[in-house]
Amino acid sequence: MTSGLTLSIDAMGGDHAPDAILAGVDQFAKDNPHARYILHGDQVALDHLLADLPAAKAASEVRHTADIVPMDAKPSQAMRKKGTSMWNAIASVKAGEAAAVVSAGNTGALMAVAHLQLRTMEGLHRPAITASWPTPKGQCVVLDVGANVDSDPDQLVDFAIMGEAFAKALYGLERPKIGLLNVGSEDVKGHEDIREAMRLLRLYGATLNLDIHGFVEGNDISMGKTDVVVTDGFTGNIALKTAEGAARLVGAFLKEALTSSPLAMAGALLASSGLKKLRNRMDPSSSNGGVFLGLNGLVIKSHGGTDARGFANAMAVGARLASSSYMTQVADNLLRLSAARVAAQAQAQTSPAVEEA
Amino acid sequence: MTSGLTLSIDAMGGDHAPDAILAGVDQFAKDNPHARYILHGDQVALDHLLADLPAAKAASEVRHTADIVPMDAKPSQAMRKKGTSMWNAIASVKAGEAAAVVSAGNTGALMAVAHLQLRTMEGLHRPAITASWPTPKGQCVVLDVGANVDSDPDQLVDFAIMGEAFAKALYGLERPKIGLLNVGSEDVKGHEDIREAMRLLRLYGATLNLDIHGFVEGNDISMGKTDVVVTDGFTGNIALKTAEGAARLVGAFLKEALTSSPLAMAGALLASSGLKKLRNRMDPSSSNGGVFLGLNGLVIKSHGGTDARGFANAMAVGARLASSSYMTQVADNLLRLSAARVAAQAQAQTSPAVEEA
Repeated sequence: MTSGLTLSIDAMGGDHAPDAILAGVDQFAKDNPHARYILHGDQVALDHLLADLPAAKAASEVRHTADIVPMDAKPSQAMRKKGTSMWNAIASVKAGEAAAVVSAGNTGALMAVAHLQLRTMEGLHRPAITASWPTPKGQCVVLDVGANVDSDPDQLVDFAIMGEAFAKALYGLERPKIGLLNVGSEDVKGHEDIREAMRLLRLYGATLNLDIHGFVEGNDISMGKTDVVVTDGFTGNIALKTAEGAARLVGAFLKEALTSSPLAMAGALLASSGLKKLRNRMDPSSSNGGVFLGLNGLVIKSHGGTDARGFANAMAVGARLASSSYMTQVADNLLRLSAARVAAQAQAQTSPAVEEA
Repeated sequence: MTSGLTLSIDAMGGDHAPDAILAGVDQFAKDNPHARYILHGDQVALDHLLADLPAAKAASEVRHTADIVPMDAKPSQAMRKKGTSMWNAIASVKAGEAAAVVSAGNTGALMAVAHLQLRTMEGLHRPAITASWPTPKGQCVVLDVGANVDSDPDQLVDFAIMGEAFAKALYGLERPKIGLLNVGSEDVKGHEDIREAMRLLRLYGATLNLDIHGFVEGNDISMGKTDVVVTDGFTGNIALKTAEGAARLVGAFLKEALTSSPLAMAGALLASSGLKKLRNRMDPSSSNGGVFLGLNGLVIKSHGGTDARGFANAMAVGARLASSSYMTQVADNLLRLSAARVAAQAQAQTSPAVEEA
């Protein structure tokens, strides 16, 4: 699937850049011998690292820049500074040289710079950030997890459309089930905005042939009740981080429990291969790669603290989306959504509205 | 601490009522020989159960009613039906016969009926529901987790005051640290309402000698960064349920990991006492008992699916709050907050506001 694929890499973004980034490229390159990479960053530092990474070296071209976006940079600072490794990595996508950009840099800065260069897709209100969330069956996609601090009902409909196309492309689902995150599953629950969003989802979902499951609650996310969970960026960000914190707490309790006595420690030793499987499953590197949806170009955000494996996984997300019909599907659905919105408005204006009791 | 204490019990509320409820009363009664109970529910059914529960029987008085609030009742239905076990259990608190009511009935119905009878405390905008959240150090209190579907900045300040008094009373803390849940910890993060809430918290917090830590993120809850986490009811409810779902998923993964091979199973067997400790720690019964704060009376909501141990724990929460100065502290702080609000308004009207750049 990676034949003819070029990925643009922000080699200087991330807590362990450029070492972990280039090691990640090397790891990915070994598994995907036909892909190519444009590495943006300090030529001397990168060449030095590539000397020990033959797979990455063979498939990479280094584009030198000495400027970087610091991990604690404000979005406004990053936007004013052209020529950073982050800026240039995105520019490669804009220029059509690469199918996707992967960066482990500062999230806010990356969104700002990507938004500035790539712009929002036609017909879309705002971009969104996804999280791939582990479930018993596999994964579900939750969005928005932080691109926006609030979202109106129309934006939530946009997120549903992008999330659905994402789940098709990345998880290979034929007709992903879509849920809207709320405080209860009945249609009367929640505040006015969320109920209006559900009304719109059902209205436009019929036109766009979306599988709208209805409202889902917080615990339904990890249970995998739906393949797509739509929410505003404030709630989604808090839900994601809260789940990470809870999982980490259980992990800490587990560690304590398994070191609480010599017997428990012996047991843990015997069970170590099973426990290692659990660790891998909970490891953020396994599902690394939040994706910025809704821009005219694919932008993959790897965790800031990523290791090589995590970065390679983020690259795999980019490669899979790039080789799918994700972009055209979303563009297509946004066009149809625009038409449906215009039709709904026209109808509302010509026929007097029947208000609900 | 339970000498002279009387608890009012909705014996018919909950998925396993009245059996689990009365077994819970019995369990609590064994540990607290001086407390007394008013049991509201079906006399015949309760007398039958009490025959096998001597500790509960010796300290209880049954008040007969044949009417109950079904677990799937709408709040509006429950409010119209006087004389249910839930209604009467709350009425006992209103009449001053009992210091707190404990019910495992439907949350929405319980809040509606309690609100109708007990009314909101003077000076308070809206009541809130708390969750006691496990942390590495012990517990923190998160509120609101579902009484309201949205909350303005003034309400969030109210929640901080109630949560602080709650943490003092229930966890025995001298000066609980208060955090406001947001998508980032810097003061510039989040939407306008949340930043305004932080401004008010700092303003009134100084007057009320509150320890305002600042913004906290989702993962900070389980890490116990603050003792009180303030949030609106929509976000809080979703955060709580999302964390429960994530913890359950890790538990399912762990079980799978420990049954994945004969060696892992042998290890799990050896480590079983440690793993049992973990299970107890994660068991919702251990921290059972959400509390409705802000009403003129203590209302403890036990999980609907609670077992006897969970209900006994909910009773312990009620007993501890009833024997503390929680109610007077909150009333006191609300009075001082009202005064501070009036003073701040007066100042805003007399001195021209200096706008921040």
